[in-house]
Amino acid sequence: MKIIRTPREMQQAAQALRRAGKTIGFVPTMGFLHEGHLSLIRIARERADVLVASIFVNPTQFGPGEDLDAYPRDFERDERLCCEEGVDLLFYPTPETMYLEGHSTWVEEEALSGMLCGAARPVHFRGVCTVVTKLLNLVLPDFMVLGEKDAQQLRVLRRMVRNLNIPVDVVSGPTVREADGLAMSSRNKYLSPEERKEAICLFQGLGKAKEQFSAGERSADVLTASVRDVIEKTSGTIDYIEVVDDENLQRIKVLEKPALIALAVKFSGVRLIDNAVLGK
Amino acid sequence: MKIIRTPREMQQAAQALRRAGKTIGFVPTMGFLHEGHLSLIRIARERADVLVASIFVNPTQFGPGEDLDAYPRDFERDERLCCEEGVDLLFYPTPETMYLEGHSTWVEEEALSGMLCGAARPVHFRGVCTVVTKLLNLVLPDFMVLGEKDAQQLRVLRRMVRNLNIPVDVVSGPTVREADGLAMSSRNKYLSPEERKEAICLFQGLGKAKEQFSAGERSADVLTASVRDVIEKTSGTIDYIEVVDDENLQRIKVLEKPALIALAVKFSGVRLIDNAVLGK
Repeated sequence: MKIIRTPREMQQAAQALRRAGKTIGFVPTMGFLHEGHLSLIRIARERADVLVASIFVNPTQFGPGEDLDAYPRDFERDERLCCEEGVDLLFYPTPETMYLEGHSTWVEEEALSGMLCGAARPVHFRGVCTVVTKLLNLVLPDFMVLGEKDAQQLRVLRRMVRNLNIPVDVVSGPTVREADGLAMSSRNKYLSPEERKEAICLFQGLGKAKEQFSAGERSADVLTASVRDVIEKTSGTIDYIEVVDDENLQRIKVLEKPALIALAVKFSGVRLIDNAVLGK
Repeated sequence: MKIIRTPREMQQAAQALRRAGKTIGFVPTMGFLHEGHLSLIRIARERADVLVASIFVNPTQFGPGEDLDAYPRDFERDERLCCEEGVDLLFYPTPETMYLEGHSTWVEEEALSGMLCGAARPVHFRGVCTVVTKLLNLVLPDFMVLGEKDAQQLRVLRRMVRNLNIPVDVVSGPTVREADGLAMSSRNKYLSPEERKEAICLFQGLGKAKEQFSAGERSADVLTASVRDVIEKTSGTIDYIEVVDDENLQRIKVLEKPALIALAVKFSGVRLIDNAVLGK
């Protein structure tokens, strides 16, 4: 495995691979890898001639007061894991080389970015769209693998790729969970032991909603209320629980076509998200 | 010469050319070609294995009340001219295939886009940046040739390409002028015979400023005042005359490093622009 630290070297390597006719697979990450990331890397490994992963804690997707500085980092461990999973090129740039002085260009998706997580994090998806556009221009992948845990991010980036005609296939990988159901996240390590136990309420609430949906319930209010009941038994603070159209992320009242039920819950300062697709 | 009418076909053709190791040169235009465009096509022809030109009157760079519907079009003539100049692929998409229903992603350059033409045309450069990003993703060129007549557009797009790490060289070609000095523009045909004669005031005013600069004048106010004097002898209405830093387009008072003197003047409804670089 080769580690590449500058955008220029990454792009030159990618261009050489393209000229040589190689299929490039790409998994972008913010590092502090867990089984969720590794599952995406394994999906990419199967289809790619050359597998590129990136580790970049992107400052522009964190708002003021968010956890940019506290975001967990452990490059040596990440490096070892990537190597074990068969990553060929690990792109590990610095913020200074990714955002040169005078950076003034932003990519913004405006229809799907303002609700759910975007409501509480107004610059988040602009930062995500901008950095992923940059990464795609540097890595030049045939396909990119994204996790379904970040449901809104997946939909925003799919839309962006289609709207800007970016020549990349977007592949998604299912959420990987701890044994008790908690969705894997780099932020889980910041939970206290007590909060860690309570945090399964996201998964449990979604499970209850899925059961009700399977039993025929189609009212969004009823489904969100029963998730809310589960969460409110814990010390978690609900940021949002919403049932939205799976395509356009608009709130719906009655589930008539595929819907996404998504939620964000804070334990002390730690914001956890999870979601389930209903009716697909 | 082959005409390609859909984004999908364009991208597939470009990908095949890339795989075959061809160097792709690209000249994006809004059609109604004149010698200015053809000079850019000739510059590209010299360096490219495969030369792609596009003709697309991009609706998103026109504001409400601007001349989108009136913008001149003559595809048959454009097609013939491209063929004569050795264009290999002519990309001629419709607005409906370029902007699918639900288009919601925009590329915006925020430091250089708000002044000069951007002040009077608030969505203009967002539309330009978005469509050029799309075109670059569809044509996948090694280099793109842009005209120096659109001075701000050239600088905005250079910045965008650098900020988003788009793998393309931006080459510029000098402004081509009529015998009397008027910069070529598709909009010139809308001038009345009397206005056509008066319209050389842009060139004459810039000429006077250049003379004064050569004679040692370094005050932006003095230079713009003498351009203003020339324009005000005509029926033209000044939109702006400004001296700005050639790099960051910020207004300057004293010319100590390369500067751009740029102006926009309206004759009846027809908006003409021109510029000169001083001290480079």
